Amino acid sequence: MNILVINSGSSSLKYQLFKMPEKAPVCSGLVERIGIEGSFIKHTVYRNGEKHSIEESGFIANHGEGLKQVLTLLTQSEYAVINSPDDITAVGHRVVHGGEHFTGATLITDEVKKQIKKLFSLAPLHNPVNYKCIEVAEQTFVNAKQIAVFDTAFHQTLPEKAYRYAIPEWYYKKHSIRVYGFHGTSHKYVSEQAIKWLNQENSKIISIHLGNGCSMAAIKDGKSIDTSMGFGPLSGLMMGTRSGDIDPSVIFHLMEHSGYTLDQLSTLVNKQSGLLGVGGSSDMRDIRKLLSEGNAAAILALKLYAYRIKKFIGAYAAVLNGIDAIIFTAGVGENDSNMREAVCTELDYLGIELDPDQNIAYKGELKEINSASSKVKILVIPTNEEYEIAHQCYGLLD
Amino acid sequence: MNILVINSGSSSLKYQLFKMPEKAPVCSGLVERIGIEGSFIKHTVYRNGEKHSIEESGFIANHGEGLKQVLTLLTQSEYAVINSPDDITAVGHRVVHGGEHFTGATLITDEVKKQIKKLFSLAPLHNPVNYKCIEVAEQTFVNAKQIAVFDTAFHQTLPEKAYRYAIPEWYYKKHSIRVYGFHGTSHKYVSEQAIKWLNQENSKIISIHLGNGCSMAAIKDGKSIDTSMGFGPLSGLMMGTRSGDIDPSVIFHLMEHSGYTLDQLSTLVNKQSGLLGVGGSSDMRDIRKLLSEGNAAAILALKLYAYRIKKFIGAYAAVLNGIDAIIFTAGVGENDSNMREAVCTELDYLGIELDPDQNIAYKGELKEINSASSKVKILVIPTNEEYEIAHQCYGLLD
Repeated sequence: MNILVINSGSSSLKYQLFKMPEKAPVCSGLVERIGIEGSFIKHTVYRNGEKHSIEESGFIANHGEGLKQVLTLLTQSEYAVINSPDDITAVGHRVVHGGEHFTGATLITDEVKKQIKKLFSLAPLHNPVNYKCIEVAEQTFVNAKQIAVFDTAFHQTLPEKAYRYAIPEWYYKKHSIRVYGFHGTSHKYVSEQAIKWLNQENSKIISIHLGNGCSMAAIKDGKSIDTSMGFGPLSGLMMGTRSGDIDPSVIFHLMEHSGYTLDQLSTLVNKQSGLLGVGGSSDMRDIRKLLSEGNAAAILALKLYAYRIKKFIGAYAAVLNGIDAIIFTAGVGENDSNMREAVCTELDYLGIELDPDQNIAYKGELKEINSASSKVKILVIPTNEEYEIAHQCYGLLD
Repeated sequence: MNILVINSGSSSLKYQLFKMPEKAPVCSGLVERIGIEGSFIKHTVYRNGEKHSIEESGFIANHGEGLKQVLTLLTQSEYAVINSPDDITAVGHRVVHGGEHFTGATLITDEVKKQIKKLFSLAPLHNPVNYKCIEVAEQTFVNAKQIAVFDTAFHQTLPEKAYRYAIPEWYYKKHSIRVYGFHGTSHKYVSEQAIKWLNQENSKIISIHLGNGCSMAAIKDGKSIDTSMGFGPLSGLMMGTRSGDIDPSVIFHLMEHSGYTLDQLSTLVNKQSGLLGVGGSSDMRDIRKLLSEGNAAAILALKLYAYRIKKFIGAYAAVLNGIDAIIFTAGVGENDSNMREAVCTELDYLGIELDPDQNIAYKGELKEINSASSKVKILVIPTNEEYEIAHQCYGLLD
């Protein structure tokens, strides 16, 4: 069966089509600058081990128009992969926030849509767009099952001591204030790969997702028991543009004594901080370039970035009372061997010993990069959130 | 020589007189409800191994009046301990915030007073009161040296990667936003006791101060290299009334979507959270009583409280790449053996193994409570911030 995975942002729409259960990606693509001048679609077809790409530009007013153009590419272009929308069995939607309601892939009904709408205030930048794309997909792929896969779902196994903040229960009951955690689809995917690799009944795994957003999860026997992002995707690790953990006293102080507004401070910690704010670019490759020029800000940014990860490794070693494996994944995790080395240095007390040669030999497939004597396996595993969504959709339908 | 230590709060003034270098406390006392109806002074004299207490009530309008009454008790009461104010060689003032300027005990000059004033905005609840008490003490003990001992000073050895937040440098340079850390006098005192006890050249120590305020420090070779409180005394561990770490997204969300004001939210996380907010009382003894009645909120409060400490132990084990000793100190740390047990349970991966019998046998003096096979020493050490201040004053004068 064909499963189309859709991952929508405020002005973008990523998609990927999988033939299941063969796990084969048929095509993928990206609609960019929706509703903005300079809209374009990049569509790539995988055929006989080769990739063919088409790029089309021209104003795309909204996500509905974007998806219609995608349908045309899927059915009528030179590299058409299906005959009609009815060849799509299911559309899998990445939905950022599932609140406490959704703990796994969910067939979308009117009731489910109502629930997703209720969660708008918890993820105001994401859930409304995800919701819109569900409605658009319902109109475009009329006979397909629509399925939601939530970024928060994997972390719904957190125990109360990990998901509650130390504030009165009223704020939890009335305002839904708790740790939700994000990147669940990625943490689930890579930790399942790691569990297969370890091939042991019980497992204690720390998953480190370092993309533009960054988060970590403590995973016991396949279940997330703690994670570094919290109520929103701001806390925990230092990220591309987000500060990660910061004392809320800083917010109070800057509003009260220095006249900053709430919006300014939210923009500061969400969009102007992290690697960008400290080192001058949100892209780790730029930071590496600056480092090679001896740039002091870049040096500091890298130190802060690695130091935070180290502390969470320690915290999760305590929470799990042990570590069988740590996993590096996503853009920086997979591609920046220097960061992996910086993180794994001087952690032998926790049983973590990197093999520097194995570390730089990673080539895009699951690799063990620890030394032979390391108590803890250090794994680099390419994440694949789109495939994981297709996989969960397939599991639900099967 | 006689050193008088003064620890002032907004409506209180604690004092203790030490004969140095004999380390002997001569008397101590507390002026409470200054400027509020119901003011009183409790004054205790230590003589020949006995304690004699006097309590006096009657309205005390301000700290100046309070200190004058203390002087009367010191010189003219039944248990007078000095003849005149000139018998006091030095007055040691606990000053909460020393910013980046003060790294140790400091003789107070006009220039130092100017610096303390500059730091008012960083510690608006504390530094103004501390400043006022310095001026009052200058007038009351005209010929004594006035010395400031800062709560932040011990943490001035933190490396940049630990004290900088991942926000642009501008906020550090222009608004002094960084991790300062507090409880420095206590962490310094107990870690020095532990280093003596360990009797080894290099040491990796985690100090856990659990009072009404709570904080932890990672201490390498006697120097603080990380600490859980940050810019203000809010972040890190769960405390009597403070939430400890909380995602700033929560603040943004509650202000934007639920109409809370900045003041309300600051009050919430500083005064209505922690043990009080979750468990119903800021006093651990009350929480224990509620627990014995099977109160669910108390059970959750204790779980959250212990869990946070555990995570910081792990984080600091990573930062230090090892642990020689962990120290429990202050009210809860010294008196709540159940909390020590909850914290030390299932941390054997980190080399931490409690001896339950030793744990409950602590009697107010430094005690090792780990099992014989524990890699890490677990110590309970009574803190003594007043003595530490006197000690630092004596060191400065000597």
